[in-house]
Amino acid sequence: MRKQVTMTEVVTRDGFQIEPGFIETEYKISLIRRLIEAGVKRLEVTSFVHPIYVPQMKDAEAVMCGLSDRPNDVTFCTLALNEKGVERAIAAGTDEINFTFSVSETHNRKNSRRSVSESLDNIRFLIRRAEEEKIPINVGIATSFGCPFEGIYKPERVIPLIERLTDWGINSIILADTTGMAHPLQVKETCQQVLKQFPNLTLHLHLHNTRGMGAANVMAGLEAGVTRFDSSLAGIGGCPFAPGASGNICTEDIVHMLELMGYETEMNIDKLITLAKELEGKLEKTLPGQIMKAGKSSDLHSNEWQPAR
Amino acid sequence: MRKQVTMTEVVTRDGFQIEPGFIETEYKISLIRRLIEAGVKRLEVTSFVHPIYVPQMKDAEAVMCGLSDRPNDVTFCTLALNEKGVERAIAAGTDEINFTFSVSETHNRKNSRRSVSESLDNIRFLIRRAEEEKIPINVGIATSFGCPFEGIYKPERVIPLIERLTDWGINSIILADTTGMAHPLQVKETCQQVLKQFPNLTLHLHLHNTRGMGAANVMAGLEAGVTRFDSSLAGIGGCPFAPGASGNICTEDIVHMLELMGYETEMNIDKLITLAKELEGKLEKTLPGQIMKAGKSSDLHSNEWQPAR
Repeated sequence: MRKQVTMTEVVTRDGFQIEPGFIETEYKISLIRRLIEAGVKRLEVTSFVHPIYVPQMKDAEAVMCGLSDRPNDVTFCTLALNEKGVERAIAAGTDEINFTFSVSETHNRKNSRRSVSESLDNIRFLIRRAEEEKIPINVGIATSFGCPFEGIYKPERVIPLIERLTDWGINSIILADTTGMAHPLQVKETCQQVLKQFPNLTLHLHLHNTRGMGAANVMAGLEAGVTRFDSSLAGIGGCPFAPGASGNICTEDIVHMLELMGYETEMNIDKLITLAKELEGKLEKTLPGQIMKAGKSSDLHSNEWQPAR
Repeated sequence: MRKQVTMTEVVTRDGFQIEPGFIETEYKISLIRRLIEAGVKRLEVTSFVHPIYVPQMKDAEAVMCGLSDRPNDVTFCTLALNEKGVERAIAAGTDEINFTFSVSETHNRKNSRRSVSESLDNIRFLIRRAEEEKIPINVGIATSFGCPFEGIYKPERVIPLIERLTDWGINSIILADTTGMAHPLQVKETCQQVLKQFPNLTLHLHLHNTRGMGAANVMAGLEAGVTRFDSSLAGIGGCPFAPGASGNICTEDIVHMLELMGYETEMNIDKLITLAKELEGKLEKTLPGQIMKAGKSSDLHSNEWQPAR
């Protein structure tokens, strides 16, 4: 039996978030519909944040509303950062809510103008509201492996934070390599320690390919026992401070690698490639995904075929 | 003690080979000099092939001559495909000679207009000449993991070929994922089987990042016990049939990953990044390397720093 890996598609949230031009609501809805047709079962669809801070997500309600007829086996996660966001997410019919904070004081302050301790207090408060509605919660821990102000972290840095969250009843955690600094041995060691200490935790990895280590870090996660990965169609969603660098790990590239290795993702790679190519046209720039350029390893040429010189 | 990994720099051979415009001899020489200053100890410098087939390598003698004062601890490998090439390589003072053939009949015929069996006969003949001069030989096995005409190979496909080569006295083999089709489990399994069956073999991996699996395949090789990898500055050297796809695994990106994990490469990453950026200017196009765009994981920002919005 093939081992199952669950991918969470983040293209319309983490992917689109830093796109400078507003992407029309209709396109977002249409893309998500076709991602679902390509086999995507989990998505971080949008974020319920103030449109002043993230104008790209100003249509969060409209996107959710346009997809209210989604299949029952598809899970929509949405990001909320405060009470208003949680209320909006609940009203919009989210299936799960994602909260987030950073390990790094500096990074956390820059993102939320709160200390880590204040962010945790806030999350503790928000958890109660989501629990009242019986909405499952995932907590994303940004800069879990390091941050560009403080450097690379040992597992000991993130583990006490997971301990606090699990004490509050959280059973799904997303360790995020927000700025693509983590290396494979670090990912493996951290995930092994986390899964050993919290055996009942649902552990997700949110990896970026900023420094070319994304796929290697997926392998490291798999070796540690992680089976849930966030990724973005075409690999979009970089850092504002690394122009030209790769973004999130690329959905179709990672699915291609996993399927070659015998893992089951339930995704249709050809459909994903079609969507990635279309997105490249839509955003009018070369996107990081490789499979859409090179084809799958299983795409064979006839004997008569000659490469262009 | 940090575990040693030896990188062989192939930018001026596999990297430049498919560049359409001729790169001046002076630039090639200057780049190799500065790669050596950056810590590079092994290079595949050039190939002694007919200039009609590979015009970019028409200055093979001139490049070697311009670097005849190289340090003693630096090894220059050069590629030769026939007797004339071997004589030219010897006359030019090569330190080691690389021969090559493909596992794939189709790929081998397209590259050399010979069957695999004819190529092996040819290599067996060439080995004698190199041995007379006591010049160490490496044999590169192209499409070791699969080819775009025949698909992905099991280890059983390449092992009998290694057996024949070792019977002929070859003790250094380069397994090449020429078209970037290999996946990490395959690389690990193949290398484990090869190293088990041929424990005295010096095994090199020549990996491409065509489908985004390059760094993951390096990890797989390391886990199998491989400590020698070919790579190209800035990740250049793609396939003519995958335009826009990544080329060879990128020297500075892989060195960055290895050093983060505690391996010793003896390379100066900052110098490599400087050279990669310069090469990007020289070739007037965006090159695949990520570290030159994103910076190293250890490059820290001050607290005052704000990302561009």
